[in-house]
Amino acid sequence: MKTVALAGGVGGAKLADGLANLLPSSDLTIVVNTGDDFEHLGLYISPDLDTVCYTLANLVDPVKGWGRENETWNFLENLTALGGPTWFQIGDKDLATHIERTRMMKAGQRLSEVTKQFCKSWLIGPRVLPMSDDPVRTIVNSDEGSLAFQEYFVARRCEPDVTGFEFDGIEKAVPAPGVLEAIKDADLIVFCPSNPWVSIDPILKLKGVRRSLENKFVIAVSPIIQGKTIKGPAAKMYQDLGVEPSALSVFDHYSDILDTFVIDDLDANLAEKITTPVLVTNTIMKNRQDRIDLARKIIEFCSMH
Amino acid sequence: MKTVALAGGVGGAKLADGLANLLPSSDLTIVVNTGDDFEHLGLYISPDLDTVCYTLANLVDPVKGWGRENETWNFLENLTALGGPTWFQIGDKDLATHIERTRMMKAGQRLSEVTKQFCKSWLIGPRVLPMSDDPVRTIVNSDEGSLAFQEYFVARRCEPDVTGFEFDGIEKAVPAPGVLEAIKDADLIVFCPSNPWVSIDPILKLKGVRRSLENKFVIAVSPIIQGKTIKGPAAKMYQDLGVEPSALSVFDHYSDILDTFVIDDLDANLAEKITTPVLVTNTIMKNRQDRIDLARKIIEFCSMH
Repeated sequence: MKTVALAGGVGGAKLADGLANLLPSSDLTIVVNTGDDFEHLGLYISPDLDTVCYTLANLVDPVKGWGRENETWNFLENLTALGGPTWFQIGDKDLATHIERTRMMKAGQRLSEVTKQFCKSWLIGPRVLPMSDDPVRTIVNSDEGSLAFQEYFVARRCEPDVTGFEFDGIEKAVPAPGVLEAIKDADLIVFCPSNPWVSIDPILKLKGVRRSLENKFVIAVSPIIQGKTIKGPAAKMYQDLGVEPSALSVFDHYSDILDTFVIDDLDANLAEKITTPVLVTNTIMKNRQDRIDLARKIIEFCSMH
Repeated sequence: MKTVALAGGVGGAKLADGLANLLPSSDLTIVVNTGDDFEHLGLYISPDLDTVCYTLANLVDPVKGWGRENETWNFLENLTALGGPTWFQIGDKDLATHIERTRMMKAGQRLSEVTKQFCKSWLIGPRVLPMSDDPVRTIVNSDEGSLAFQEYFVARRCEPDVTGFEFDGIEKAVPAPGVLEAIKDADLIVFCPSNPWVSIDPILKLKGVRRSLENKFVIAVSPIIQGKTIKGPAAKMYQDLGVEPSALSVFDHYSDILDTFVIDDLDANLAEKITTPVLVTNTIMKNRQDRIDLARKIIEFCSMH
């Protein structure tokens, strides 16, 4: 079953990894949010792409779900000693990714080309595509004003009250080469359990993406379980925006494009309120087997619908 | 005795450290060659400044004489895995220096300002000045053509036959703020045992430096002992250029500006051929005490002449 997964950070990466362990590599394309990308210390940093790639390559820190396993922090410690900006944590291994990506991009390569080469180096089977080679920057509007995403997310620890979102550059940006083609060829589109507002929406708002989904079979996995997220600010964002955070709100968020929906066993009581077929299963991915099980259930469920 | 030391890399840094351990901080200024500086991986790298500062801060790798003690190499290892350019070795701790320096310079600070702040962070007492805030780039002309210094020194391991040197930008460059003033105020100028061709000459060729030395008491320490160097290509450069490598050749190199000269005990037989007063002593600095001893002998010797 030719599958395209849309993914953001940690939760998305886990399901992408489950799918990668289940499907033949040639049948899976993962399209990753780049709205969180930013420049820091002169480096082009793409947090979601890195989380997805590190996870697929089995290089990721298994406890945090992002960054590198057995990471060392000598760079950051010494940057601290020099009084440099250390609000964004970069480990020594991770730094190689940012420096080499920046070097390649300054030499004229596109983000998608760099990503392709990195995936080759890291022996990643499925195709990983940034949503766009053009800059799209998520801006969080809040009671503290407009904040660049990483400023809101890392520096301000998601504390400001969110009033809305903007995606700078989204009108001019086009999907990266291969994104629309992969969707066109796909039998199944999976919205991973990523943040609807700032991980999946930026991808959906790209020119041509929403239209390309119209005749496709689309399934979404709720990142909200019992009103909360495993990780990240999605629940708080709904709350701030005056919407009760729940799997139902996520369903409403996407309802015009969904064919099916996945909620966690813990939210089983919500199933009857969902107007498409719904898969009720464990969506909490504590280990690789959980990821593969969820991926398998999604594939099986979609085969039947 | 107010002292200005001109220094290049490892040998120069060792004597500078000896002087720093002997003289009151306010009496010592170290002017460092920047002709070896270059851009690599988008970073501004200043090898001699780093070697001098790491040595003075007691952060240097005591075995290699450059780079950081207890360094880790996770960045470089992961850069290798991505197929990045790894001919120039950068450790994880060292990387913080290059990244923060580059960040500060891109934000508009001059190399001398960055150096001043780094010295403060590293608790370095004496003043360390880059020779210039303007770009000067040492070019090695050779039988393989014109090579940027680091290309000759690191990538080509000093193998090409040297035919001469150029210092790109030297005509336009001016000494960094404080350099000429420090020389004017100094009682003593010390040419550290650094490479005459590519460490000391670039400093001397800067506008106003040679003239500022005319009425000063100048002593040089030969980096060549028994026809060889402890480290670096100075002896090979003399050879390639058709000059027998020896302390005498170093003396001739500087003779028009020297008041006294220092040769190693092992070269004692050359003393009679030197036309200024000459200090014959141990110049091989195996440990900190050797550095301090040499510094003390130089200061004492110059006090008497």
